[in-house]
Amino acid sequence: MEKMRTEEDFLGKVSVPAEALYGIYTVRTVRNLSFSGRLLGAYPAYIRSLAFVKKAAAKANYEAGVVDERICEAIEAACHQIISGEYEDQFPVDILCGGGGTGINMNMNEVIANVSNEQLGGKRGVYDLVHPVDHVSASQSSTDVCHTAMRMTIIELWKKLDGALNKLVCSLDQKAVEFMPIRTIARTCFQDATTITMGNQFSGYSAVIERRRKEIDRAADRLYMINLGATVVGTGISAPEAYRKVVVDKLREVTGSFDLRLRDNLFDAAQNFDDLAEVSSRLALLASTLSKIAHDFRMLSSGPEAGFAELQLPAVQPGSSFFPGKINPVVPETMIHCCFQMIGFDRTVQAAYEHGELNLNVWEGLAAWNIYESMRMCSEAVDHFVSDCVNGITVNEERCKQYAESTIPFVLELKVKEGYSSVSNMLKEAGKKGISIKELVQQGGE
Amino acid sequence: MEKMRTEEDFLGKVSVPAEALYGIYTVRTVRNLSFSGRLLGAYPAYIRSLAFVKKAAAKANYEAGVVDERICEAIEAACHQIISGEYEDQFPVDILCGGGGTGINMNMNEVIANVSNEQLGGKRGVYDLVHPVDHVSASQSSTDVCHTAMRMTIIELWKKLDGALNKLVCSLDQKAVEFMPIRTIARTCFQDATTITMGNQFSGYSAVIERRRKEIDRAADRLYMINLGATVVGTGISAPEAYRKVVVDKLREVTGSFDLRLRDNLFDAAQNFDDLAEVSSRLALLASTLSKIAHDFRMLSSGPEAGFAELQLPAVQPGSSFFPGKINPVVPETMIHCCFQMIGFDRTVQAAYEHGELNLNVWEGLAAWNIYESMRMCSEAVDHFVSDCVNGITVNEERCKQYAESTIPFVLELKVKEGYSSVSNMLKEAGKKGISIKELVQQGGE
Amino acid sequence: MEKMRTEEDFLGKVSVPAEALYGIYTVRTVRNLSFSGRLLGAYPAYIRSLAFVKKAAAKANYEAGVVDERICEAIEAACHQIISGEYEDQFPVDILCGGGGTGINMNMNEVIANVSNEQLGGKRGVYDLVHPVDHVSASQSSTDVCHTAMRMTIIELWKKLDGALNKLVCSLDQKAVEFMPIRTIARTCFQDATTITMGNQFSGYSAVIERRRKEIDRAADRLYMINLGATVVGTGISAPEAYRKVVVDKLREVTGSFDLRLRDNLFDAAQNFDDLAEVSSRLALLASTLSKIAHDFRMLSSGPEAGFAELQLPAVQPGSSFFPGKINPVVPETMIHCCFQMIGFDRTVQAAYEHGELNLNVWEGLAAWNIYESMRMCSEAVDHFVSDCVNGITVNEERCKQYAESTIPFVLELKVKEGYSSVSNMLKEAGKKGISIKELVQQGGE
Amino acid sequence: MEKMRTEEDFLGKVSVPAEALYGIYTVRTVRNLSFSGRLLGAYPAYIRSLAFVKKAAAKANYEAGVVDERICEAIEAACHQIISGEYEDQFPVDILCGGGGTGINMNMNEVIANVSNEQLGGKRGVYDLVHPVDHVSASQSSTDVCHTAMRMTIIELWKKLDGALNKLVCSLDQKAVEFMPIRTIARTCFQDATTITMGNQFSGYSAVIERRRKEIDRAADRLYMINLGATVVGTGISAPEAYRKVVVDKLREVTGSFDLRLRDNLFDAAQNFDDLAEVSSRLALLASTLSKIAHDFRMLSSGPEAGFAELQLPAVQPGSSFFPGKINPVVPETMIHCCFQMIGFDRTVQAAYEHGELNLNVWEGLAAWNIYESMRMCSEAVDHFVSDCVNGITVNEERCKQYAESTIPFVLELKVKEGYSSVSNMLKEAGKKGISIKELVQQGGE
Repeated sequence: MEKMRTEEDFLGKVSVPAEALYGIYTVRTVRNLSFSGRLLGAYPAYIRSLAFVKKAAAKANYEAGVVDERICEAIEAACHQIISGEYEDQFPVDILCGGGGTGINMNMNEVIANVSNEQLGGKRGVYDLVHPVDHVSASQSSTDVCHTAMRMTIIELWKKLDGALNKLVCSLDQKAVEFMPIRTIARTCFQDATTITMGNQFSGYSAVIERRRKEIDRAADRLYMINLGATVVGTGISAPEAYRKVVVDKLREVTGSFDLRLRDNLFDAAQNFDDLAEVSSRLALLASTLSKIAHDFRMLSSGPEAGFAELQLPAVQPGSSFFPGKINPVVPETMIHCCFQMIGFDRTVQAAYEHGELNLNVWEGLAAWNIYESMRMCSEAVDHFVSDCVNGITVNEERCKQYAESTIPFVLELKVKEGYSSVSNMLKEAGKKGISIKELVQQGGE
Repeated sequence: MEKMRTEEDFLGKVSVPAEALYGIYTVRTVRNLSFSGRLLGAYPAYIRSLAFVKKAAAKANYEAGVVDERICEAIEAACHQIISGEYEDQFPVDILCGGGGTGINMNMNEVIANVSNEQLGGKRGVYDLVHPVDHVSASQSSTDVCHTAMRMTIIELWKKLDGALNKLVCSLDQKAVEFMPIRTIARTCFQDATTITMGNQFSGYSAVIERRRKEIDRAADRLYMINLGATVVGTGISAPEAYRKVVVDKLREVTGSFDLRLRDNLFDAAQNFDDLAEVSSRLALLASTLSKIAHDFRMLSSGPEAGFAELQLPAVQPGSSFFPGKINPVVPETMIHCCFQMIGFDRTVQAAYEHGELNLNVWEGLAAWNIYESMRMCSEAVDHFVSDCVNGITVNEERCKQYAESTIPFVLELKVKEGYSSVSNMLKEAGKKGISIKELVQQGGE
Repeated sequence: MEKMRTEEDFLGKVSVPAEALYGIYTVRTVRNLSFSGRLLGAYPAYIRSLAFVKKAAAKANYEAGVVDERICEAIEAACHQIISGEYEDQFPVDILCGGGGTGINMNMNEVIANVSNEQLGGKRGVYDLVHPVDHVSASQSSTDVCHTAMRMTIIELWKKLDGALNKLVCSLDQKAVEFMPIRTIARTCFQDATTITMGNQFSGYSAVIERRRKEIDRAADRLYMINLGATVVGTGISAPEAYRKVVVDKLREVTGSFDLRLRDNLFDAAQNFDDLAEVSSRLALLASTLSKIAHDFRMLSSGPEAGFAELQLPAVQPGSSFFPGKINPVVPETMIHCCFQMIGFDRTVQAAYEHGELNLNVWEGLAAWNIYESMRMCSEAVDHFVSDCVNGITVNEERCKQYAESTIPFVLELKVKEGYSSVSNMLKEAGKKGISIKELVQQGGE
Repeated sequence: MEKMRTEEDFLGKVSVPAEALYGIYTVRTVRNLSFSGRLLGAYPAYIRSLAFVKKAAAKANYEAGVVDERICEAIEAACHQIISGEYEDQFPVDILCGGGGTGINMNMNEVIANVSNEQLGGKRGVYDLVHPVDHVSASQSSTDVCHTAMRMTIIELWKKLDGALNKLVCSLDQKAVEFMPIRTIARTCFQDATTITMGNQFSGYSAVIERRRKEIDRAADRLYMINLGATVVGTGISAPEAYRKVVVDKLREVTGSFDLRLRDNLFDAAQNFDDLAEVSSRLALLASTLSKIAHDFRMLSSGPEAGFAELQLPAVQPGSSFFPGKINPVVPETMIHCCFQMIGFDRTVQAAYEHGELNLNVWEGLAAWNIYESMRMCSEAVDHFVSDCVNGITVNEERCKQYAESTIPFVLELKVKEGYSSVSNMLKEAGKKGISIKELVQQGGE
């Protein structure tokens, strides 16, 4: 049987695994609030961000005289180890647990406290040297700590997605250039319409992705505005003035992220996470856009014989366990899966935002996780989409030529010369004669 | 200038148009709570249902000794006129006004009171003979009145939509029979797959619509469970026992709708309108299904030359102001518009349901209106879809034949005989020889 | 019986009311594609925008030599009349009809053609002088005409909503100042937390609305980018170079809206209406935010005895037909109704965007209408919210004081002085003694 | 470095880890289609269901003469091991990969083939004895295999959730009985309304959960209708008649689930997964309902001093790292997190359903996964909600009594006796005298 130690809070005593770096609060949280199967430890970017916040807070607390140098250094050293990726197995709380982030904040506080304690010669579960709340969490509340760390995490994840989208734009741009000379048909209402070049079409794909990328980037930019020092609802109560004055500077210093700055209205920051909701709705718009393009690729490569067959997608694997030789657009389909999933993640974010109330929207952590997942999955899916699909698309030039020369575009050219009404009359005449309008024009030409 | 009269409530005096059959409460509601531009008067089915409820309540109040015979008869006569369609211009409150239905209930109470009064020799705006609250609304609250009337309205609107869907199922069934001999290609992942008959495909369309229809029907069936007599939160307070015992019977009697019956748990009825939310989510599923079929029709009729071109949709109007002779699938597209609108209506219903709280979900009226609109629009759009599209669909048999005989289905037939692995090998061999697998087989056959 | 005339197109002859200014295309569209009950004629801002586009096109066509001066002037005069609000009854097409805007464009073309014709001495239904397609619609397609007019309409509607939101921000700001001295309680997780001033809280409301307003404004700004001259899918086919060069200038000239300018990539403009989808998702975020604030007002004014009772909302009407003297938060509830409706409208817009395909997203008109409705309703509802609710809110100072002095905030102050751990211990001690912590502290103080 | 073997398909050669039981198709799928971080191996219920299907198919193939006894037995033995939970690490494909389930089906086929091969003395990666496609997947397609297995999986997960919901209903019922004598206030529009017992209120909670549970159960019932034998789009091509006749019987036999039966229209089954979409929308309705109840618990336990304070929730952990002694409703909040997440999962399911096209909705696997997650999370969260919250709820009787005796309920009682109008007049009189209506009544009584 696992060896246990006992810890106590004002609600009573609880057994904690003797070797655990976390403590009573984490154990209670795991026991009471786990349901999703997604543990904090599986989200290293979030763990790092939280540890950076704790490190900055320790420095600010030291300057404010809240903790002494020895404690400050111990906390910093512990944060450093956590940031380096140690102890990921010490974060067992459900990342989706309720309670406004307290479970997550406390898991971090307890791990830091225990690591610090041991550095100072103390032992696990005895917090007389470094206390999870009185020292590690001094001058902070779960509200400002998690609020800040969630935004830092999203910024980090966005950088990765931004890179992937940039590659996609480049790839689409190259295809636009490559396909610019190739005339094909444009369809409206799914019906033959006019001629266009395949390059024109791809230039539209590139333009919209670039615009969506920029819009997310703008929304992500606002996430540098944080509320560290605001404590629970924006008053800063329990955080000394001297701490509040420097803590954001300390965070900039420890992270090297010089754009981080304090929100103007800290009550607003606690009440509303529309900054996250906005990032999320722009991710949903990106998803709809990516899905549209991936759908187009499926349609335009439909066939080989009974479809449009204008594009050829790279064959990455047999399409089926059933049809020998069949190749399916599996990479665009995976992209679409990701897009639909992102749309669902956004729905949750908006529900969390919609249901906020009074001084603090406690559903923020849920929203943040959905954004993490959306960005993480999208980065991966776009990477594959670029390398395993877009980069390798080729055009069936013969088919496109044939389409470009079909009747409706011909009729449109005729209209440009003759006017709508007279072409309408020619169509009626051709109809009566039972010939095509091309034939009628050729006859007329004789 | 319009002639005005003055009415008064405990908040003060208000001018009311002298000729109006409504009174002070209606004027206040119009003034304070109008925003949508959708007036109660434009929803005759709802007005009728409300008047039926009022009529039944008058009868029950008379039996319970709450109102005397003269008042009861006057109210009944007024209700009769309203049910017959008179006075639609006397219902100016915004049908989407907040406040849990009180504005709507009071508009009805005031019109009935004034019409009744005049019948008894009284005059507009003087409620000494028949009072809107003390008599017309006796033993009722807005909660049970509107709850009941909304369900009756939806049942009525559903009957119309049900009829339209039945016609659609018939039409699809006929097409399934008509197209049963015509072999064409089935696509999976938008790629050529195997042969199927067009009738098989249409039988799938028919089956899913019939199933969706039945599911809505089942959900609508539950709307016969009403809460008349529950008054405000289910206790029935302010409604005498003698009234409560008979009022649902009276409603059955005046409407002839013998399925109406009282809910088991009236607290539940006030707290939750999941019965409406369920109807709505099934309408949304219907919408997604109809949209899918309409999309299929657009795809399968794409062309004429650069598309699938398996189906021909009836040409109801020129497709474009731009392309002479172009015919677009405008009826399916209108159907799809309706579907997307319905999906939005459902979103509002779910928001209203989600945000309910405590003893009474006050957002119910909003939900009901969205269902009214969804059903009304869908009835119209499906009627057109049947008569102007589905009934007239024809198949391009030559094209279908050509697809049915294309390579992938051929390979599949081959696999049935030879096994996946050996056909895979044949494909590789054909690839090396630079010939098609059909050619390889023919060579092999020599 | 109504007198009829006959008109003909390539599909055959149709009867048109003899007095109608619209023609065969409109009649076909009304007959085939009506389902929503929302007619184009009820949307004057859209009609005006369409007529401005037609006027600009006439001028550009004249400069390009496509139409002669006489026709150009007749069209301009007709547009002028339409812009002035005449002929609203001549636009009977369903504003939600499918087909990518052709029904709407043609209704406008036909009305302009008939009005122009009569000015030139022609008669209704005979289009030899001014033809709806060859002249009025020359060099245009429904795609670029409607695309442009929809954006102009939204800009106009946004100006109104923007004004309403500005008033709301002012009103909230004034309340923030007014309530700044009043201490009350802040709640987290719905539990008593710390003290705050009511002014702090209102400053948060103001800040978030102002931010939401700005974000919509930024999204609306992008709608000045239009595609007039792009014709059907962006190639500009059928529009002469000379026309394309000037038509946007002409539109700026006739509207006086100097920010209108041509999109960079016209293929992109036809493929994607993410600019509209973005406006819509920001409207949805606004809706969630407004709804949150209105919900807060309901909660904070709950009572009078069994609720929070911190705020008093103006009494605009009796709350109930049932409870004498009961006052309900009907104006916030109407605001919330509007918000949920807006969220539904956005859902439809996103569905329309999501389902776009290939060279032209034909669902754009549906999206635009949902934005029109969302903005129109929101303007009205916010106007009421400001004047009938926010402006008149007062604070129950006694109640707030009592809350500010309650136990949990007291404990928090204590913790600031004594630290979390020792206060936890005091709580345990008080618990054992069966006294409150306040009493314990007072005893300790003796 | 890991030891590798080489496998080959018609697209070329690929290295596979020498020890892997999966093969080339799995490796390709992992390489090309991974993005979500959710691996098939983490979903044992789905793996079991797939293995059951394969086992049944092997038996049916044996009876149909498609595979010989030795192969059949080897496959059965392999399936048995997989069902027993062995080899979970051999399923590395992304469970959300695109391509209509082929990646998942093939991962299973390859593992079974390799395990079978080894049993028969063959070696990994050499499929001459048992071939993944020709033998393991004989007479099947990914479509019918995954379709069937997904439904079996959801049925299994539903059983667990159903049990949790049953416990919740019992717990709410017990509380309804326990709280039946305790009068408190009912609120409408968040304002004091009438008296009710707390038991009445809880009876409403119980009733709605029981109804939602039943509705999901009905929807889940339909999932017993499967399409095994339909192969790819419903024609059954490639599956011999003798196999098709018995395969569903075999599945019933191997699973012991005697309700499994063949769908009526197999084309419909391939085109539409409305059966899944319906389960999902009912889960979303359940989520909204659970969220409403959890929200109510938060509100009714708000306080302790500045809130409603009618209910006391069990204290499972300190509420905050910030406030000593503060207890937050963390279990209801976790329940709400789960609910919002479920609403998002449903959004994805509906997107997947909406975007289906033609003969096969290839997004089905995505939909299924979202349902798995929704059910799994909900089971866990409801278990906690019951045991850590509902079971331990107590009522603050004193507070409830005080509310029940407050003014508005008093006025309502008065109205029942005196009528709305006269009580309205009394209110005005009391207002003028500056006394409460209770005082006025007492004075009048003298």
